[in-house]
Amino acid sequence: MSEVIDVPQLSAAEPEHRGGVDPQTLTAVLDGRWAAVRQRSRAFELPRDEPPSYDLGTEEHRARVTARLHQFGASGMPQTAFPPSVGGRGDIGAGQITMEMLGYRDLSLMVKAGVQWGLFAGAITALGTEHHHRTYLRRAIDLDLMGCFAMTEVGHGSDVQSIETTATYDPQTQTFDIHSPTPTARKEYIGNAARDGELAVVFAQLHTGGRAHGVHALLVPIRTPDGRTAPGVTIGDCGRKAGLNGVDNGRLTFDHVRVPREALLDRYGQVAADGTYTSPVQSPTRRFFTMLGTLVRGRVSVSGAAQNATKHALTIAVRHALQRRQFTGPDDGEEVLLADYRAHQRRLLPALATTYALSFAQNELTSTMHDLLTGEGQPDPRAQRELESRAAGLKAVSTWHATATIQACREACGGAGYLAENTLPQLKADTDVFTTFEGDNTVLLQLVGKGLLTRYSAQFEGLDWRGMARFAAENAVGVAIERTVARSVFERLGSRGRREGGVRDRRWQLELLEDRERHLVETAAVRLRRGRADGRGPFAAFNDVQPHLLEAARAHVDRVLLEAFLAGIDGCTDPACAALLESVCDLHVLSRVEADRGWYLEHNRISAARAKEVTRAVDALCEELRPHLATLVDGFGIPDAWVEATIAQPVRPG
Amino acid sequence: MSEVIDVPQLSAAEPEHRGGVDPQTLTAVLDGRWAAVRQRSRAFELPRDEPPSYDLGTEEHRARVTARLHQFGASGMPQTAFPPSVGGRGDIGAGQITMEMLGYRDLSLMVKAGVQWGLFAGAITALGTEHHHRTYLRRAIDLDLMGCFAMTEVGHGSDVQSIETTATYDPQTQTFDIHSPTPTARKEYIGNAARDGELAVVFAQLHTGGRAHGVHALLVPIRTPDGRTAPGVTIGDCGRKAGLNGVDNGRLTFDHVRVPREALLDRYGQVAADGTYTSPVQSPTRRFFTMLGTLVRGRVSVSGAAQNATKHALTIAVRHALQRRQFTGPDDGEEVLLADYRAHQRRLLPALATTYALSFAQNELTSTMHDLLTGEGQPDPRAQRELESRAAGLKAVSTWHATATIQACREACGGAGYLAENTLPQLKADTDVFTTFEGDNTVLLQLVGKGLLTRYSAQFEGLDWRGMARFAAENAVGVAIERTVARSVFERLGSRGRREGGVRDRRWQLELLEDRERHLVETAAVRLRRGRADGRGPFAAFNDVQPHLLEAARAHVDRVLLEAFLAGIDGCTDPACAALLESVCDLHVLSRVEADRGWYLEHNRISAARAKEVTRAVDALCEELRPHLATLVDGFGIPDAWVEATIAQPVRPG
Repeated sequence: MSEVIDVPQLSAAEPEHRGGVDPQTLTAVLDGRWAAVRQRSRAFELPRDEPPSYDLGTEEHRARVTARLHQFGASGMPQTAFPPSVGGRGDIGAGQITMEMLGYRDLSLMVKAGVQWGLFAGAITALGTEHHHRTYLRRAIDLDLMGCFAMTEVGHGSDVQSIETTATYDPQTQTFDIHSPTPTARKEYIGNAARDGELAVVFAQLHTGGRAHGVHALLVPIRTPDGRTAPGVTIGDCGRKAGLNGVDNGRLTFDHVRVPREALLDRYGQVAADGTYTSPVQSPTRRFFTMLGTLVRGRVSVSGAAQNATKHALTIAVRHALQRRQFTGPDDGEEVLLADYRAHQRRLLPALATTYALSFAQNELTSTMHDLLTGEGQPDPRAQRELESRAAGLKAVSTWHATATIQACREACGGAGYLAENTLPQLKADTDVFTTFEGDNTVLLQLVGKGLLTRYSAQFEGLDWRGMARFAAENAVGVAIERTVARSVFERLGSRGRREGGVRDRRWQLELLEDRERHLVETAAVRLRRGRADGRGPFAAFNDVQPHLLEAARAHVDRVLLEAFLAGIDGCTDPACAALLESVCDLHVLSRVEADRGWYLEHNRISAARAKEVTRAVDALCEELRPHLATLVDGFGIPDAWVEATIAQPVRPG
Repeated sequence: MSEVIDVPQLSAAEPEHRGGVDPQTLTAVLDGRWAAVRQRSRAFELPRDEPPSYDLGTEEHRARVTARLHQFGASGMPQTAFPPSVGGRGDIGAGQITMEMLGYRDLSLMVKAGVQWGLFAGAITALGTEHHHRTYLRRAIDLDLMGCFAMTEVGHGSDVQSIETTATYDPQTQTFDIHSPTPTARKEYIGNAARDGELAVVFAQLHTGGRAHGVHALLVPIRTPDGRTAPGVTIGDCGRKAGLNGVDNGRLTFDHVRVPREALLDRYGQVAADGTYTSPVQSPTRRFFTMLGTLVRGRVSVSGAAQNATKHALTIAVRHALQRRQFTGPDDGEEVLLADYRAHQRRLLPALATTYALSFAQNELTSTMHDLLTGEGQPDPRAQRELESRAAGLKAVSTWHATATIQACREACGGAGYLAENTLPQLKADTDVFTTFEGDNTVLLQLVGKGLLTRYSAQFEGLDWRGMARFAAENAVGVAIERTVARSVFERLGSRGRREGGVRDRRWQLELLEDRERHLVETAAVRLRRGRADGRGPFAAFNDVQPHLLEAARAHVDRVLLEAFLAGIDGCTDPACAALLESVCDLHVLSRVEADRGWYLEHNRISAARAKEVTRAVDALCEELRPHLATLVDGFGIPDAWVEATIAQPVRPG
């Protein structure tokens, strides 16, 4: 309570100033390659329906979001990503951006759009062939045919390879028998299933000629066009959820449902009329991961939507902090703005800085994906794997960042942050599932970690673990860090010539992060080998190293984020804006180093004095960036009309 | 995705075993002094209403919770805490426990009960006198008179001393004029205001005879007995919230509302008929904090309810982890339980251990409060301040722990954790506001930090800051750590004679935590003095040290938690149970040390080798406690019928 002011005497806030940076300049830098698409999205208005969504029951909310889906579809925007043959422009990057922009306004709509266009129509595009495209794709894109992406089951979510639903081919009738053999084979959390879906892309174990061929996708009608449940199908309702209640998640069970041979999405595996199985991809494992490759776009979308929801929350909390005063200062008797308290700055500013870092990394990822998927011929498998790993890592970090930051914003707004009229509750509840859907974050980071290890092991094939340990200990050889942005960006770092030797020296920061990643990967490999050698068995060997491996993956993403930030600054031509971004980048990277300083210290990467210097630098950067708070959130470029929170009407200091 | 199993090969889980500890023995230890009251609460059943609350709109939910409030009232349990003169037993501890137990089942009911019996009737009891007790108290207790506690305003929440509502005495009419002079004077987030409240305890600036006497509380009717809004009062509705939608939070504005002279709750300040003001407490500041002292019980309740919600969430997540298998192990082809993955253990087990620590600290706090408030005469002011500080610290740490742990549990249950049928969404949403209501956590920790400083400064009165800095640097004198449990507990530590010198050495742990607290308090004092001396002004001096001061407060609570845990173990007579609790205590304290190891390293409190030893010990403790997971959550003693989550039906391994 107010007693606290007795000892810590407070003074009034310093006057606002902007350091000459126009938020629109920042917006242009953040908007990046698809700036025009973002501008078009900003101009697209959804009606402000009454009552607000948070006052609707589940059924009313679902109906509203379905109606909004049609409004959004009518804008022509979601079609952009599809091939020209079905009315699109084949602009995958633009399609992604369009989806992600919904993250600012209506996350139920974003997810429902992602299910319909991204997963359902996306799977038909990627896994189907000419016949499927012709028969279903345009209807799906135009919302004449609503669909589901039925992969996850009660018993298997992350471990898709072990799903239990079967698709057994019968050459007599030339049909597949789709069946859920156990209660745990039930398809679960399936978007569009509870209310709207007519056709489902069902993932099932394919059997033909008495042999199993692994997971494949088939088109299975779950409702008749007039909305009745299809024979043999049981549809359940997942009911109320923490958030995203405008999305009708449901459950699907199949009791020997027959579908024609053409129902198989057969780009990567064909069944002839007589039941003969063929595939252009020989290895069943590679085939499986090729099919799962369709998920990468979903992960990129979720990452982007999580970032946009985070920006929305930060905009609310920062604007509130620039208006809300609490406790009288000792000098002039004025009450002090929340934004002037150091503890409040520490709550919001490092998170804001990391949000910038994530934005730049998201732009790079979108661009890389676009180029890879729209290039000629089949993408290079190595580049494809790298893209998947990058998407997995960024999705995990963006969504955890969203959960933590939106929570911090809620608390930073006190009781007001708990009221639905201030939007934060919905942002929090809607984004919460992002950390575990489209790939559980822990599983995704493990995938990243495994990729790092594989790259490492290949390099040292033939060395036994003792040799490996010696090499690692001597630091004589190491993991080759593959930088993710142009060499020229790094070359230009040298010419900055400022703050050399201090904690804001960019080369020092980069080397620190690279060294951490390298060391964590090397030692994870060593520990895995040693663990296997000590006879406790392979699970124990893995399990002991699991947290270490996840930390290596996280360190990798941290390094990629810093590189993306640097490339983003490098592309900024306005000197004042670039200077501001340099400070934001410092705050981002130094607050990460501060959080991990236990590791750096115990591995003798930094001295105790340097660790304290990092903490002081974070404080100093909070003070330095405090006058730019309004600029930094305005830079996100969220249209004022989209920020509906009562407490967050824009502050425009003179 | 499942690719991760390629490199890290997994083996099946080890068989369950319980190490001979009966969960009921644990429950008895955790239940503590008011075990019988807890047992009575466990026997009290609320009807399992259909549809479940999460399917109700706001108005239906409010109606249900009001009905449940009457059912709860009819049990006679909430009356326990009140004086015998109004039908109670004066058992404050029992009253607290009864309220907190609602945290397991219906947090809206818990909060509504807290508003009615704790805040509204509690304020009449504590701040009123004979007349008020006679006229209102029994009706309030029996729910014939529903009431509000109208303290917070739009403009002032934490800083109650600056609220703007006025109560101006008019000797002509012998009435007070209650008025909201500005828009920011509106009372905000007031429980019971939007729907049910008839009478409000209104906090306002008291004016009489042309002089201001600071904040006082008055009884102001806001509705007529037939439910119409009282003249001059405007009632608003806070509408939908993130959670707790069964509580009708509202807004109150007063337009020169007249109430009789007797409306003043006049225990600590009286206004005579002619307007003369008198008070038994001379200092206005002391008077203010004496009145706010009523808030301490609310904070203790919120802390307890947060802990109980945390236990509920952990029970769900742990039972799920003991049933859910994912990814096939390499040895026997069986799928591995989530509970066997180290990353999963690290998510749940340290949080579970800290929940035990918090429970023991909560028991101590409740007991201390009970003894202090039910003792003869006025409580000793120093003991009262100590109690308030302890309540503030524990409330902050318990509620942040709840937010983080319930979130971790939600994620640990994947998509299932997002479904309302699995309870975690409601636990998360309902407890979210706990970190900022009944005192914002940051403000509360600052209060704790200030208390530590004051105690410290008093010790060194007369030394200037240079002398202070020198003393602190030489570590020649230091903060006297006042241990919070009996000396005998510490004496018995010496006789354990086990694991000496290692990181599980209890004396080492205790000294480490004590040393951290002492150092942080001392250096905060030094920095504050130095900051004031350097001419940047008092606000800058405070602001630079604010995060440091909050860290000192947190270190203090950490030390208190460890002491409470040790006292709890000391009171356990079953050797196997005590041994299990010793390991849980180790995990709690070492995971805290691990989290703070950056600080310990940079202050040369531990070596790099020791820091790594701590991390290894946390891993080893996860492995050691893994077989006791079911026992540890069963030990919370939540009746099976209260754990409604579909995914969490009890596991009873043979």
